Amino acid sequence: MRVLYLGDIVGRSGRTLVLEKVPELREQLKLDLVVVNGENAASGFGITRKICDQLLEIGVDAITTGNHVWDQKETAQFISQEKRLIRPINFPKGTPGIGAGLYEVSRGRTALVINAMGRIFMDPLDDPFACVEAELSKHRLGHTVSFILVDIHCEATSEKMAMGHFCDGRVSFVVGSHSHVPTADAQILEGGTAYQTDAGMCGDYNSVIGMDKEEPLQRFTRKMVAGRFTPAMGEGTLCGVFVETDDRTGLAKRIEPLRLGARLHESMPEL
Amino acid sequence: MRVLYLGDIVGRSGRTLVLEKVPELREQLKLDLVVVNGENAASGFGITRKICDQLLEIGVDAITTGNHVWDQKETAQFISQEKRLIRPINFPKGTPGIGAGLYEVSRGRTALVINAMGRIFMDPLDDPFACVEAELSKHRLGHTVSFILVDIHCEATSEKMAMGHFCDGRVSFVVGSHSHVPTADAQILEGGTAYQTDAGMCGDYNSVIGMDKEEPLQRFTRKMVAGRFTPAMGEGTLCGVFVETDDRTGLAKRIEPLRLGARLHESMPEL
Amino acid sequence: MRVLYLGDIVGRSGRTLVLEKVPELREQLKLDLVVVNGENAASGFGITRKICDQLLEIGVDAITTGNHVWDQKETAQFISQEKRLIRPINFPKGTPGIGAGLYEVSRGRTALVINAMGRIFMDPLDDPFACVEAELSKHRLGHTVSFILVDIHCEATSEKMAMGHFCDGRVSFVVGSHSHVPTADAQILEGGTAYQTDAGMCGDYNSVIGMDKEEPLQRFTRKMVAGRFTPAMGEGTLCGVFVETDDRTGLAKRIEPLRLGARLHESMPEL
Amino acid sequence: MRVLYLGDIVGRSGRTLVLEKVPELREQLKLDLVVVNGENAASGFGITRKICDQLLEIGVDAITTGNHVWDQKETAQFISQEKRLIRPINFPKGTPGIGAGLYEVSRGRTALVINAMGRIFMDPLDDPFACVEAELSKHRLGHTVSFILVDIHCEATSEKMAMGHFCDGRVSFVVGSHSHVPTADAQILEGGTAYQTDAGMCGDYNSVIGMDKEEPLQRFTRKMVAGRFTPAMGEGTLCGVFVETDDRTGLAKRIEPLRLGARLHESMPEL
Ligand SMILES: [Fe+2]
Ligand SMILES: [Fe+2]
Ligand SMILES: [Fe+2]
Ligand SMILES: [Fe+2]
Ligand SMILES: [Fe+2]
Ligand SMILES: [Fe+2]
Ligand SMILES: [Fe+2]
Ligand SMILES: [Fe+2]
Repeated sequence: MRVLYLGDIVGRSGRTLVLEKVPELREQLKLDLVVVNGENAASGFGITRKICDQLLEIGVDAITTGNHVWDQKETAQFISQEKRLIRPINFPKGTPGIGAGLYEVSRGRTALVINAMGRIFMDPLDDPFACVEAELSKHRLGHTVSFILVDIHCEATSEKMAMGHFCDGRVSFVVGSHSHVPTADAQILEGGTAYQTDAGMCGDYNSVIGMDKEEPLQRFTRKMVAGRFTPAMGEGTLCGVFVETDDRTGLAKRIEPLRLGARLHESMPEL
Repeated sequence: MRVLYLGDIVGRSGRTLVLEKVPELREQLKLDLVVVNGENAASGFGITRKICDQLLEIGVDAITTGNHVWDQKETAQFISQEKRLIRPINFPKGTPGIGAGLYEVSRGRTALVINAMGRIFMDPLDDPFACVEAELSKHRLGHTVSFILVDIHCEATSEKMAMGHFCDGRVSFVVGSHSHVPTADAQILEGGTAYQTDAGMCGDYNSVIGMDKEEPLQRFTRKMVAGRFTPAMGEGTLCGVFVETDDRTGLAKRIEPLRLGARLHESMPEL
Repeated sequence: MRVLYLGDIVGRSGRTLVLEKVPELREQLKLDLVVVNGENAASGFGITRKICDQLLEIGVDAITTGNHVWDQKETAQFISQEKRLIRPINFPKGTPGIGAGLYEVSRGRTALVINAMGRIFMDPLDDPFACVEAELSKHRLGHTVSFILVDIHCEATSEKMAMGHFCDGRVSFVVGSHSHVPTADAQILEGGTAYQTDAGMCGDYNSVIGMDKEEPLQRFTRKMVAGRFTPAMGEGTLCGVFVETDDRTGLAKRIEPLRLGARLHESMPEL
Repeated sequence: MRVLYLGDIVGRSGRTLVLEKVPELREQLKLDLVVVNGENAASGFGITRKICDQLLEIGVDAITTGNHVWDQKETAQFISQEKRLIRPINFPKGTPGIGAGLYEVSRGRTALVINAMGRIFMDPLDDPFACVEAELSKHRLGHTVSFILVDIHCEATSEKMAMGHFCDGRVSFVVGSHSHVPTADAQILEGGTAYQTDAGMCGDYNSVIGMDKEEPLQRFTRKMVAGRFTPAMGEGTLCGVFVETDDRTGLAKRIEPLRLGARLHESMPEL
């Protein structure tokens, strides 16, 4: 299976680029599954029904999120009706929405997408390792499901790597989000799981993690709030990861970073 | 000027590789300056006099550090005698060692290396922005000094990017350390400063940030301490960043990641 | 029922005082139940089998703990054999020991003691509110059990107060530990639950939270480690809370702080 | 000198009580100086010019603050004109307002009030110990100034106690704020400085640290935002500390907690 994961979409710069490029990439890379992280799609904070629909319409199969999932009030309302929008699995019991979604892919295959949130330097949710374990126990890679992706949304690189090894051999691809910076450590772990610590954001990299740099900079230096955080509006760069797996095992044959756009060194997988 | 910065050296896997490769790279890339982060060189925790000497002997010009700088008791003793070992500049007044070092490079040129530590999710030190500002006010890039490097050692990508923009146009190269994962966001900022959020570690990437993965994994899942953290002992990967600057301005002409070794996609700048 | 809870016992100063005073207080206050927090009893770090036995011998009915519970290696070994030593209930499944203990009191009555750990500014464990809820669902105060105590071990006063209100009307007494400072906010909440934000420590108050003040002070000012933390060895002060409940309802009739010893204003409930 | 310090005033419940009681207490306790912490006076968030004026009119001599000082936009505007409103001394250079104020008291005496913010579990400001040291170096207790108060606004009890010992013998009174819970550890330290870890808040104690308990409780259990934090509107309790010093030395002769109002055990110093 050929899968593309795109990291946190930040504001209009990121959205515009994703909406434009996903259809082309789908074709060009013969993608079976496209997953994007949408937690910052709406002006940097959360995701609206409208943006969610736009992404699904142009060929995104599933949208993961993170700590910003509830920033838009409407999300808690519509998430129960939209199984392709996933919130972290380790929210308390009773939280609207789902933390893992099972999707049909071409030729009768299914893909499972899990979203979990780390706890180091982040809000204390339930144990992401135990929650992922519980979800994995319901499936068997290469048998009941062809592909499993885990989006581990967290701050600490140690927690992301630990999740990679924790899932190694049982999952097709573990990818991190939240740092808004792509890492250059794509590798296939010992057990066959593709891994990259962070996919990076889709947004304007002439910024502070996608936000216009003026306000963050003055907060760092003056320790006072002067205005609001707003997304940087320059041309965006698309950041993601391409993974190819063996359908019989569900394990990875190949992992390649994808970077396309204004500011970073470009990287495009070749078929 | 041609400069190579190598990220946090973790234990023997990292050290062996750095000691072996730096002389070759110095030649091959015609390097004028080599700076490495050595805060995890001694079994993952700090740096000893012996390791410091080994690195300096094979052609390292300056060694930066971070939150692990004092892990080895001897460091606070010998650091005052070794101006090529730098600790973060924003430790309190009276701290042994220096936070910025001025070094002679070939053909009468000088290079300034500054090490600062971020405060988000880290121990509260003095303001890194104010401390870097104070140091920069003593120099003028392209006039009194040919090259200025700032190693911003911190957790949050936002703080690293903010430091990049804060220094933009006044510094040759801002590079992050501490996360132990190389980022793929090398770019030249608007003002001409080369920037990469994190250089990554020099160590074994089949690990949890360079440490044998067993203990971190059991701590994440069981929330109890079972043993000590020890560096992973598999073959290492060298991670760093190559920067080329214009001697008249001190600003960057080029920035390229360097990755060399066992597990990550390789990247080698071409002259 | 008349109950005495004593806060974190810190080192020898605290231990000596507790061993001396508990038998007297048991008599004097006609106590039915004595619970102490023992997480710092062994030189400030954890609790040993020997100290545990000493406390149980002189009339302590149950010992709660907190984040320091595993500081002594032997604890994870013997805790399964000693039902009167309790570790926080929200450790992961499979953790040795129990998070809630049911004890027989005089005249056929039973008392339930629950220990939970907060997560704000502390290590991320499972949800303390959900875990306490699960335990409370097995009992009914005033019917299946005469007395329920919740020791909420945490940093933030907000989380402690929230636990108080969360349990209000369903528990006899919610008391905080961990801050090592007694609070002066003893009250009976609207639903009848006795509450005090922190019981304070049993130890030397001429110190930094029970520790000899030299090392903490130099760490705060110099940001370097110079030595180890050792308990302050001056005369101790006993800090705790006395609660009296109605056996028919299990709810509180009275809550009084108890302070006895060297440095703080004394407070002794009168019968 | 006789001094009353009142802890964080939270919303209308706290304000009403302070405005009503301070004039009476000033008389009754023959107070020479009244200092209050006003960081939560305006609906729980910051302080307005109007509230500031009301407090000063009824006999408050100085108002300290903390992390909430800038919550009301107008504060950064008017603070430079009002020397009796103090913000933490360890904000960056260039911050509006002052971190220490010198006030005339009766019979030609002067009192110095310093406000500092801790950094453990709080926003990283400059070193509070170094900043307090710098301020103290300008004065000499018992000679150039009759009374010195340090309000250490912070989360961790360890940092508050460390500040107490750091100032011991050089300051009349070190008192903590921010936790919104009064502590019961009033004591005179070895060097003669009066000390209490936290003065507690002036507000409704049937709450979560002064806030209506519904929203905090649902956030703790559901991990989602449902509404805003608003101050609890029940009857308030006044919490503070009374200190009496020797005018020749400026050191403490006596420290007594003061609690007056709806829910906590009352405590009133007797002259
Ligand atoms: Fe994000
Ligand atoms: Fe995020
Ligand atoms: Fe490091
Ligand atoms: Fe580090
Ligand atoms: Fe403790
Ligand atoms: Fe504790
Ligand atoms: Fe406050
Ligand atoms: Fe505060």
